[in-house]
Parts: sequence; structure tokens; C-alpha cells
Amino acid sequence: MINQLTAKIQKLHAPIVVGLDPMLSYVPEHIQKEAFSAYGETLEGAAEAIWQFNKAIIDQTWDLIPAVKPQIAMYEQFGVPGVAAYQKTVDYCKSKGLIVIGDVKRGDIGSTSAAYAVGHLGRVQVGSKKLPAFNEDFATVNPYLGSDGIQPFIDVCKEEKKGIFILVKTSNPSSGEFQDRLIDGRPLYEWVGEQVAKWADTCMGDAYSYVGCVVGATYPEMGRILRKTMPKSYILVPGYGAQGGTADSLRPYFNEDGLGAIVNSSRGIIAAYKQEQYAKFGPEHFAEASRAAVEAMIADIARIF
Amino acid sequence: MINQLTAKIQKLHAPIVVGLDPMLSYVPEHIQKEAFSAYGETLEGAAEAIWQFNKAIIDQTWDLIPAVKPQIAMYEQFGVPGVAAYQKTVDYCKSKGLIVIGDVKRGDIGSTSAAYAVGHLGRVQVGSKKLPAFNEDFATVNPYLGSDGIQPFIDVCKEEKKGIFILVKTSNPSSGEFQDRLIDGRPLYEWVGEQVAKWADTCMGDAYSYVGCVVGATYPEMGRILRKTMPKSYILVPGYGAQGGTADSLRPYFNEDGLGAIVNSSRGIIAAYKQEQYAKFGPEHFAEASRAAVEAMIADIARIF
Repeated sequence: MINQLTAKIQKLHAPIVVGLDPMLSYVPEHIQKEAFSAYGETLEGAAEAIWQFNKAIIDQTWDLIPAVKPQIAMYEQFGVPGVAAYQKTVDYCKSKGLIVIGDVKRGDIGSTSAAYAVGHLGRVQVGSKKLPAFNEDFATVNPYLGSDGIQPFIDVCKEEKKGIFILVKTSNPSSGEFQDRLIDGRPLYEWVGEQVAKWADTCMGDAYSYVGCVVGATYPEMGRILRKTMPKSYILVPGYGAQGGTADSLRPYFNEDGLGAIVNSSRGIIAAYKQEQYAKFGPEHFAEASRAAVEAMIADIARIF
Repeated sequence: MINQLTAKIQKLHAPIVVGLDPMLSYVPEHIQKEAFSAYGETLEGAAEAIWQFNKAIIDQTWDLIPAVKPQIAMYEQFGVPGVAAYQKTVDYCKSKGLIVIGDVKRGDIGSTSAAYAVGHLGRVQVGSKKLPAFNEDFATVNPYLGSDGIQPFIDVCKEEKKGIFILVKTSNPSSGEFQDRLIDGRPLYEWVGEQVAKWADTCMGDAYSYVGCVVGATYPEMGRILRKTMPKSYILVPGYGAQGGTADSLRPYFNEDGLGAIVNSSRGIIAAYKQEQYAKFGPEHFAEASRAAVEAMIADIARIF
């Protein structure tokens, strides 16, 4: 799957991923109204609203982008109906040929991580059958529990040719509280990065590994160092746009080959119609605003090469 | 909710929690058969099997125990139908008066953690209504992202009088890879523990805080230190029984008042019928074996006081 991701990025000249993180406040009134009139102001109604919102954005952007990254929290907040909308979104994106990165940030002890790995990337044994469940192409994973928590994901990646992005340095303001603490003179995130590089070596695609990492766009100096620490890992870069990261700060995340990073934008794309520069589209044409924002993001990032 | 948990533990003389982590391999043949004959060898069939398995165990043990801890990974592996079985389990346990600790180990950046917090412990805004979604009483949370990731959970805990258990030192063999690394001469888990103590101070129930922590039974020396670091936090202690922790090693996790810790057993209870000492019950009476195992666990832990 890392080979397909690389190929799609090259073909589209677009090292980007659209974060499908649908807060209900991003969903235009007319879509909310329609969903609530069908299902009431219920979890089902909310799930229907975010699904219709996603579908319209996917329909308007799928041909421009290699991948999407639904953030499962935004669906889980609506309970089981929300999780069903997550599944629908994953399936629909895959039917459009998009690569799906499940932003699930799971991680637990061995047998439990194995269940997450199987449920999100693999196939689960049910009687005599092995069945896919959520079936994303990639998943994000939390490293706090160490190798026991990561290895089951790597095992499934090898079996299914899928991939993971392990949190190394996250984009949020307080990420340094633990991640930046110095251990033998070097920050924790570097130690995690070194471990990621070792895991990556065990699970190679053609040029890049099935094991990638997450490094926030908001910390380019750290990105520069971590790029060298993990040369064979794709870096999933959140924090561009709404969180404050700019295209200029993104160069260090890429390798000399112009590859090795994929930049996420969520709010900046899916809620583009709420920004002044795309206000002309209006809430009725929110998905077209998203398309325009994708085009602008691709052009913005192209500048740095 | 921490006050209710404390009161229930005292009333039942049982500082324990039953981990509802239903691997399909634990579910007796006759339950699997019945579920598959109704739903086929499908995700729905698997979900039905684990739900029926849980229900029987809950019916046999609810009067002996204060709380249950369903591990959501074991449900997520069966996709949306599995998550629906998780919800059914949560709801059923609550209807029996059990306190439910959702072992979800969520944690993300601010707005995303807020969605998890709302979805698992709070109520989500849908139109003019605020609706509960998963609605557990407690949730486990991963601290790798720092305060941004934790504060939204604390905010919801204050609003809803619910609680969290933050991972400090996990029970698995490789937990030391990052958690034990020394920062200014002290391991990372101690720094996390100190931060937990600060968070705990902001969110107090009567004697204990709504903010608890997770420290594995497999590391009693660390438990002794962490008990002092976080005097007002309940410690959720996994790793007793199947993972190798013994009752003797549990004393350091409790305060002088005999409170402050709640010990989890999963496999040791729910798959008791597979152990030699409970084999006499047979697969037909697996839930009675679980009851016997709960009684033995309570007696075992009572020895240390």
C-alpha cells in the first residue's frame, strides 16, 4: 500500500491528504436540516449529516488527491451510528480509489493491539472465515506502550501489505510536555524516531517502508532532524493550515527525491467555505469550496520544490 | 462517580473490576454455534456471540463486583457490529448497577480529544439537544500528547462527574522501552505520574480524584513509588492473574485507608472454565466458573489487608 501511495502522490503531484474530520458545526445548515428531518435530532441524524457532508466533499475532490484521513473521534462522538458513518466513509473513499488512512491513534498491550490491528487493517477469524472489519489502508498508532503495542500492527502490515504511521512528535502546543523531555541529552521523540526507523527496516515496500510516522508541521526544526533519523519512513504531517504550519516550513519533511512526506489538511479543506477567501461559494456550494482549497493547497506545496 | 466507585468497593469488600475482553476463542462452542446459526459466520454473528457470552457472565457476577472494564479493542475487531455489542454491554452493565470503565485508551490533540471525551463520557450537541453516546462512567486515556489531550477529558469529567484513568506505567513486558527512560535521573512514568497528581488536584471527589491512573500489577516496586506520587488518584491495576501479578504484589498500590486501587482481571475471570481448577464447571457452565473465580479473587486480595 505504501507503493500505491507513493505512485498516486507522484501521478497527481500532490503529497497531500484530506482530513475528513467532520465537526457538526462545519456541516451547512441545509444538510443538517435534511438529516434531522429524516432521523430527528438524534445520533442517527448527526451521523447522516456528517456522512452526506463527507460524500459531497469526496465527490468533488477524489480525482485531485491520493488519500483521505478520517479522524475516528469525530465519528465516535456520535456513538454507534457515528462509527457506522465512519465505516461508510471508509468504504466510499475506497470505492473511489482513494487510499484511506484511519486516524485512530490506537495502541495497547500485545493481544489488545493485535485486536486493533486485525480490526482496522487485517481480517478477523470468525468460525471458518477470515473477515475484514473496518478495513482502512493505513492506521495511526500511539507508541507509549513500546514494541508489544506496535509489533502486532507490523505483523498485520506484512500480511496485508498495509501500513501504519506511529506518533513521534505531534502537532499540538503541549506535545513537548513528555515528547521533548531529554533522555541522555536527546528528546524522547528522537528515541521514538530511532525505534520507528528500526521497525521500518523490518517492513519495507519498494523505496519506502510500510511503517511511517507522524511529525507535526508546527515543529519544522524537529522535522528536519527526524527526516534524517527515519529516512525510509513516510512522514504524515498534520498541522498545515488551520494549526499554523506553512508550506515553507514543510520542505524539511521531504527527502531529496521529493517524496517521503504527506501533508494533511482537515478544517482548511472541509470547512473552506467558512473562510473569507472561499466565502463566495456559500454554504450551498461548500464542496466546490473544498475543491478550490485542495487546488490551492497543491499549488502552495508545489512552490517548495 | 469516583465517590460511587469507592462506596461500592467498600460495601462489597471487593477492590476489583472484571475485564470484559471477550476473545472469540474464550466463547464456548455452544454459544458460537447458536450465534452463527442465527447470523452466519459474519461480523454480526461474532458480535452476537461475544454479547451473549458477556451477558451470561454479567448475570452471574454483577452482585459481587463494583465494576466492569470492557476493552473496546476486542469489540472493534468485529467492526461496526462489534462496536454495537460494546454499546449493548455497557448499557446492560449499567442497568445492573455496575460501574463501567471503558478501556479505550484514547488520546489526541485538543479538539479531537474533546470529541472522544464527549462521545465516551459526556453528551454531544446535536441540533438543539445534548445526547449521550457511548456513555461509560470512566475511560482510560493515553498521555503521550500532553495536557492538550487530557484537559478536554477533565472538563467533561467535571461537568458529568465522571472519571478517567491515565496510563502511567503499563503492565506489558516492553512498557519500559519509553516509560522507564530516565529524564533528569527519574523515569518518564514518574514525570507522567507527577502530572497526573496535578491534574487530579483540579478534579476532586470526596476523598479521591476523578482523575486516576493505570499502573500494572507486574511492576510492584514502581507501584510503591507511584502510590506516593499520586496519593489522591485511584490506581487501576491490570496484570493480576493471567499476566503474572500476585496478590502479595498488590499491597503497595493501596493507601493506608485500604482504598485507592482497583485490580483488574480479564482472562482469569471470563475464561475461568478453561483453567484446570475450574474445569469441573465445563463449557456449559462457564459463567458459574467465572463467579467462582471472582469469589476466589476477592478472597485472595482480602488476604493482604
